[in-house]
Amino acid sequence: MSSFDLMKELALEEKTKIVMLVMDGLGGLPMTPGGMTELETARTPNLDQLAREGICGLSIPIARGITPGSGPAHLALFGYDPLTYEIGRGVLEAVGIGFELGRDDLAARGNFCSIDAQGLITDRRAGRIPTETCVKLVDVLQGIKLEGVEVFVRPVKEHRFVVVFRRPGLHDAVLDTDPQQVGLAPVPAQTHTPEAQPTADLINKWLARAREVLSPYHPANMVTLRGFAKTPHLPSMKDIYKLNCGAIASYPMYRGVASLVGMKLLPTGETVPDEFVTLRDQFANYDFFYLHVKKTDSYGEDGNFDNKVHIIEEVDGLIPSLMALKPDVVAVTGDHSTPALLKSHSWHPVPTLIWSRHAGAGGATAFSERQCAQGGLGLFQAVDLMPLLMANALRLAKFGA
Amino acid sequence: MSSFDLMKELALEEKTKIVMLVMDGLGGLPMTPGGMTELETARTPNLDQLAREGICGLSIPIARGITPGSGPAHLALFGYDPLTYEIGRGVLEAVGIGFELGRDDLAARGNFCSIDAQGLITDRRAGRIPTETCVKLVDVLQGIKLEGVEVFVRPVKEHRFVVVFRRPGLHDAVLDTDPQQVGLAPVPAQTHTPEAQPTADLINKWLARAREVLSPYHPANMVTLRGFAKTPHLPSMKDIYKLNCGAIASYPMYRGVASLVGMKLLPTGETVPDEFVTLRDQFANYDFFYLHVKKTDSYGEDGNFDNKVHIIEEVDGLIPSLMALKPDVVAVTGDHSTPALLKSHSWHPVPTLIWSRHAGAGGATAFSERQCAQGGLGLFQAVDLMPLLMANALRLAKFGA
Repeated sequence: MSSFDLMKELALEEKTKIVMLVMDGLGGLPMTPGGMTELETARTPNLDQLAREGICGLSIPIARGITPGSGPAHLALFGYDPLTYEIGRGVLEAVGIGFELGRDDLAARGNFCSIDAQGLITDRRAGRIPTETCVKLVDVLQGIKLEGVEVFVRPVKEHRFVVVFRRPGLHDAVLDTDPQQVGLAPVPAQTHTPEAQPTADLINKWLARAREVLSPYHPANMVTLRGFAKTPHLPSMKDIYKLNCGAIASYPMYRGVASLVGMKLLPTGETVPDEFVTLRDQFANYDFFYLHVKKTDSYGEDGNFDNKVHIIEEVDGLIPSLMALKPDVVAVTGDHSTPALLKSHSWHPVPTLIWSRHAGAGGATAFSERQCAQGGLGLFQAVDLMPLLMANALRLAKFGA
Repeated sequence: MSSFDLMKELALEEKTKIVMLVMDGLGGLPMTPGGMTELETARTPNLDQLAREGICGLSIPIARGITPGSGPAHLALFGYDPLTYEIGRGVLEAVGIGFELGRDDLAARGNFCSIDAQGLITDRRAGRIPTETCVKLVDVLQGIKLEGVEVFVRPVKEHRFVVVFRRPGLHDAVLDTDPQQVGLAPVPAQTHTPEAQPTADLINKWLARAREVLSPYHPANMVTLRGFAKTPHLPSMKDIYKLNCGAIASYPMYRGVASLVGMKLLPTGETVPDEFVTLRDQFANYDFFYLHVKKTDSYGEDGNFDNKVHIIEEVDGLIPSLMALKPDVVAVTGDHSTPALLKSHSWHPVPTLIWSRHAGAGGATAFSERQCAQGGLGLFQAVDLMPLLMANALRLAKFGA
């Protein structure tokens, strides 16, 4: 019996409320051997209190040693085995901006880039053009017409956009066209799968036209496409857990994954305090809230240890406003680690706390990597978090007689 | 997706170097309740420093409560699920002495033994005859000719030899002929599998001839055969991890398992310092080194607590020479525990440390069973060690977007 079958069989309709607070890339490393991590450095009296009153552990997003992307890491947090369910980047980006993908759609993430007279890339992000320019150039791209296929181009932010090709029979086994470094030309769309060749040919026709229509618009005079993907079929969290779920996330990709698992996307602002205000305003309306804080990850990726510390402290300062809502269960975790030392996502297990009236003996003296390693939850798979939250919310019936 | 599929998909070619130092049977037990284990007793300032700078845990070779043989325990260390991949003892012995096994070969480990006039075994090891005598008597056995089958007999050490039967259709479901105690006659080759009956008959013909030709050579006047096995097909570590692997092991069986997973066997001497010299001399030539120390296990099997302590201290003294090579990742572990108290392999999880610049917060104050139980790696499956080492070597790409 799969974990989902178990959940579907045991889940109860109750009035208890669960808040899952995800600080993206929360886990970290000391910058110098023997030093303190970002989370250990941050002054977090409120999180520390939850850690003392609740139970702590370290969650493994995918498997030991595996560094996850945001998509699979989030699927795991929501209880979906990320080795079974996969979401392509293009799909994440498209649903993240609210594009309703159909079954014939092939989505990709696009970047405007700069090329020189020889066609070689001089800037993979076109000097991070402002979003207004992106909107204008997306209109230019939308003007391209190809026979037998509908193409939708939508702006995201700065140099990023989404493109969706709509035609029956499109195949997602197409490789990225971004060569990942400057001084090279964009790679034509290629595939190792013969059935995907017509799709690759179609994309290359579109790319040739894109180059023509963008030629007057240096620095954004070409595009690269990445993460070609079709919509996966995911069961909804409502079906699995009998939870009405609301997602509070300001960043498109996380709204995307939340919508793919059937959460309602709640309108919110750009800042972390905005997100907590949304939580307060919507608290009566849902059973489960996913609240996503992006900047812990962004600063980790930038190698900015101090600013990652500050964001963690900012979140800590908002915890009292969360607890004032009297949630039954609170989880504080990350989707993965992003140590400033590595300037990238990493494989390190993620500090996690579960607070409820029934969390269990085994809290920690503080919320930190080292304390969580000693906590009563131990090292656990991230896909097991949702069953634990359901249990703490007294929303799971007994298994067997 | 299996762990190997994940590794094959994510493994990167990098220049980082990994050293896996395996102290065979490392884990131990206190000789008196409340006392210290072998590793806790040993003075190990260098290993303790690695434990402080790195991350520690306890590895479970196969499953909770399962005591492994050396073959499956090593397969697990190299990332091969030992419940999926099995290597018979005969195969291990044969490849360990450099015998190139083909697909029609059935290998077994042989022991010379002493029998009395009634054919009952009086010494299962023929008084541990010197290796020269073994070599001479193997020649005698090689003189046996049977129709329709090629038989290869090769000396190993003292009373031990390898025999390989070569004929299409041989079956490995044949039981050991060693009755495991004196006062009994060697057991004829038997099988519970009807298709293996012709193989058992053939082996019995050979055993009857062996008894005839050895009759003048008391105390080595008979043989027993164990661990009948055919070659398994194992994917190579190069294919899985994109690592060029070198094996430094003085003892045949460990060379055997290393060669079955595609490692290059590096010539080395008999002592532990010899092995570390080989590591130094070959350090430029490989990405991954497996360095095997046998005597921790041998002394454990002998119940010699003090000598096991001394070997651990000898290895500790060689750690600075290893670190002077500036490896990127070092793992120190055992394939299983061999407590002197039990005089045998045991099921106890094995103290393990991973040292790298990015190992993670959660080191220990010393390298010991108790400290490792508190470490940031927690209790983990030995098959997960390789993905962790690959991650620490920054040799794994991110999984998913």
